Amino acid sequence: LKPQAFIFDAYGTLFDVHSVLRRDGSNISGDLQALSQLWRQKQLEYTWLRALMERYEDFWQITEAALRSVVRQLSIETTDRQLERLMQAYLFPAAFGEVKSALEVLKGSPLAILSNGSPAMLDSAVRNNGLESYFAEIISVDKVKTYKPSPRVLRTWAQDSEPSRSRDSLYFLQLMGRCWSQGVRLPGLLVQPVWSRNGRLGVCS
Amino acid sequence: LKPQAFIFDAYGTLFDVHSVLRRDGSNISGDLQALSQLWRQKQLEYTWLRALMERYEDFWQITEAALRSVVRQLSIETTDRQLERLMQAYLFPAAFGEVKSALEVLKGSPLAILSNGSPAMLDSAVRNNGLESYFAEIISVDKVKTYKPSPRVLRTWAQDSEPSRSRDSLYFLQLMGRCWSQGVRLPGLLVQPVWSRNGRLGVCS
Repeated sequence: LKPQAFIFDAYGTLFDVHSVLRRDGSNISGDLQALSQLWRQKQLEYTWLRALMERYEDFWQITEAALRSVVRQLSIETTDRQLERLMQAYLFPAAFGEVKSALEVLKGSPLAILSNGSPAMLDSAVRNNGLESYFAEIISVDKVKTYKPSPRVLRTWAQDSEPSRSRDSLYFLQLMGRCWSQGVRLPGLLVQPVWSRNGRLGVCS
Repeated sequence: LKPQAFIFDAYGTLFDVHSVLRRDGSNISGDLQALSQLWRQKQLEYTWLRALMERYEDFWQITEAALRSVVRQLSIETTDRQLERLMQAYLFPAAFGEVKSALEVLKGSPLAILSNGSPAMLDSAVRNNGLESYFAEIISVDKVKTYKPSPRVLRTWAQDSEPSRSRDSLYFLQLMGRCWSQGVRLPGLLVQPVWSRNGRLGVCS
């Protein structure tokens, strides 16, 4: 079984979410590392809770709500202008250092992104890191109005995406980053997530 | 609109989850407060993630998996016997001090519990705190194999529970504790969650 495509998470896999505060938080006083960690954690919590409650709001709205909640929680004094600036910075997260060389190695197979990010956020992050030529598809959960790890995300992608539609034989997909899903079997198609860490690969179970 | 029943969360509302480590953690070396906080947080995370992935395991299994994960994360050295003892202690969480007096005040209305806890865990916690006479119903999400805040939990309860089946006029239900759900409308029935904190009540929106 040979992978016929690689599909990547965006935030935390291609893009370093903590680059936002490192680069654009300098005018804010407080524990910026704690702010960055909690912002990320709360952002993920909100995606899980909203998906589970079936009350979807897009990733931009969730990211801003998480930021406002964490700033309050940590009693960090900020102006609306500062928060607005951090949100704008979220459109320009830095790619991890090894991303480009990894994409160069893998680009013989079709590459895609499947992310919680809203389409505008993903488009901006990819473009501003000069990665747009690598990806055949950039898919946002916004299409299905739920979040990872709902199996609807992977199922919908597998049914709708261009490479899977164009083949009727087995299609094998690898997901980099954290295991957030089991494999999905559809007629003529197996979607099998894998994890990757420090250059090792493994199949998610 | 007058509430015709009160329904309570169990853990964090009636029962103090942190009483477990306070009472039975004395033979473990390490930051027990951090362990207790993270144990609870991870336990909730696992309920959200498993519910969202549609891979239900019951609350007993989730509570143990969370404990093992957090002990590793904090590098706290424990034996299997110590972990087993903490898990057993989870069957006997202490009720918050004001619970009995609150139940005395409210007992003119039907009272119920609706909780993530497995039936055996809930039964043990209620019994060991001498609260069994107050509750007309103790309902576990185990029946629907998902977790709060999935709307399936509230919907199923509203359709199945004895007090709601026995009326065909409007039925008004209040949920104590954190807001984790919107109101649910069913024929002849409105389920409206409220929050309560420091003696104040409010409608969840």
